[in-house]
Amino acid sequence: MRQRFKAWAKDKLVDNPEFVSVDPASMKGKWHAFFGNHNPIHLEVGTGKGQFINGMGKQNPSINYMGMELYDSIIITALDRILENDISNVKLIRADASHLLDYFEPGEIDRVYLNFSDPWPKKKHAKRRLTHESFLARYETILKPNSEIHFKTDNQGLFEYSLESMSKYGMFFNDISLDLHKSDMPDNVMTEYEEKFSEKGSRIYRMEAQFRS
Amino acid sequence: MRQRFKAWAKDKLVDNPEFVSVDPASMKGKWHAFFGNHNPIHLEVGTGKGQFINGMGKQNPSINYMGMELYDSIIITALDRILENDISNVKLIRADASHLLDYFEPGEIDRVYLNFSDPWPKKKHAKRRLTHESFLARYETILKPNSEIHFKTDNQGLFEYSLESMSKYGMFFNDISLDLHKSDMPDNVMTEYEEKFSEKGSRIYRMEAQFRS
Repeated sequence: MRQRFKAWAKDKLVDNPEFVSVDPASMKGKWHAFFGNHNPIHLEVGTGKGQFINGMGKQNPSINYMGMELYDSIIITALDRILENDISNVKLIRADASHLLDYFEPGEIDRVYLNFSDPWPKKKHAKRRLTHESFLARYETILKPNSEIHFKTDNQGLFEYSLESMSKYGMFFNDISLDLHKSDMPDNVMTEYEEKFSEKGSRIYRMEAQFRS
Repeated sequence: MRQRFKAWAKDKLVDNPEFVSVDPASMKGKWHAFFGNHNPIHLEVGTGKGQFINGMGKQNPSINYMGMELYDSIIITALDRILENDISNVKLIRADASHLLDYFEPGEIDRVYLNFSDPWPKKKHAKRRLTHESFLARYETILKPNSEIHFKTDNQGLFEYSLESMSKYGMFFNDISLDLHKSDMPDNVMTEYEEKFSEKGSRIYRMEAQFRS
């Protein structure tokens, strides 16, 4: 059953090339053409079912949102949302964050969003965390100079680690909230996880981290 | 009555010159002589009633602890604790953090502790917060290169501000806990405030922030 579902999902992705790229390396340097304009491109790494970028896309029509997700079976829901919303400034790529440099030219992206990324809580898996220095170096390359990463999570350990990792990398923080849903952030667009965990009473942590160059 | 108490407190401070300096500018560059050894000097800015430095002094006999406090009526309790403990590696200075550069030679101090500092929550008072860049610059001057500030507070706003201010200054974080009393820190020495607020269920935030040079 699982295989059949995956095959069906993959077909649907391939059938919607104007909304999803399944071969992002072939688009390197051409993403503005994909959107059909020269507006800034904001990339969410690990977009899941796409609630966040769809919400952001509606809220900010002059920004191009790109959601990156590895799994066919998940990204398909994000695609359904885009088709439903009939929204032109939200696109998807089915791809692996480890290979960002294969997909984007230096400076092609204007902001990176990380939302509720896998915490990889074991120390030996620290390299897999999306705020590990190896990922920060990739983001820095594909981003314009002095760009920001906006990061939300309910995972205390991942947030602590990320503050350390990003500051050691040389980044600094413009806006930190250690309890987002009790803070003043009127335009906050929630992810699926955020709705679920904040309803359960979990704190949501948020930061805006900026590269120094 | 208040005046009488103050006068009495001041007399007691002056009567114990081996434990308290009330004229720290005259000691600039001579603090190791004050302790009678060449062990590292750790300075707590805003030492209050001295529970923290007395606890640290007992725990770490090869470190010199110096507690700085502006108010006679508060520092007197810290002095009583030192006299009670008969402890030689804990000393006090009755002084104002704004004038640190008058009291210490560059590099004379090995670590700064800030514990439950006044949050000054209004934006217009940000300059008075002990993690404002003007204070960070003073700490950096009196500290040896690459030294650390260890900071604890129950005040979420002050902690958020400090992460931003310190990272913008160029500092980085080695060890952050967003819920200290649920973290693994076996040697934690509590301040008076920390005991009080953690008993009430408040989260305690802690960081070790390091200067880059």
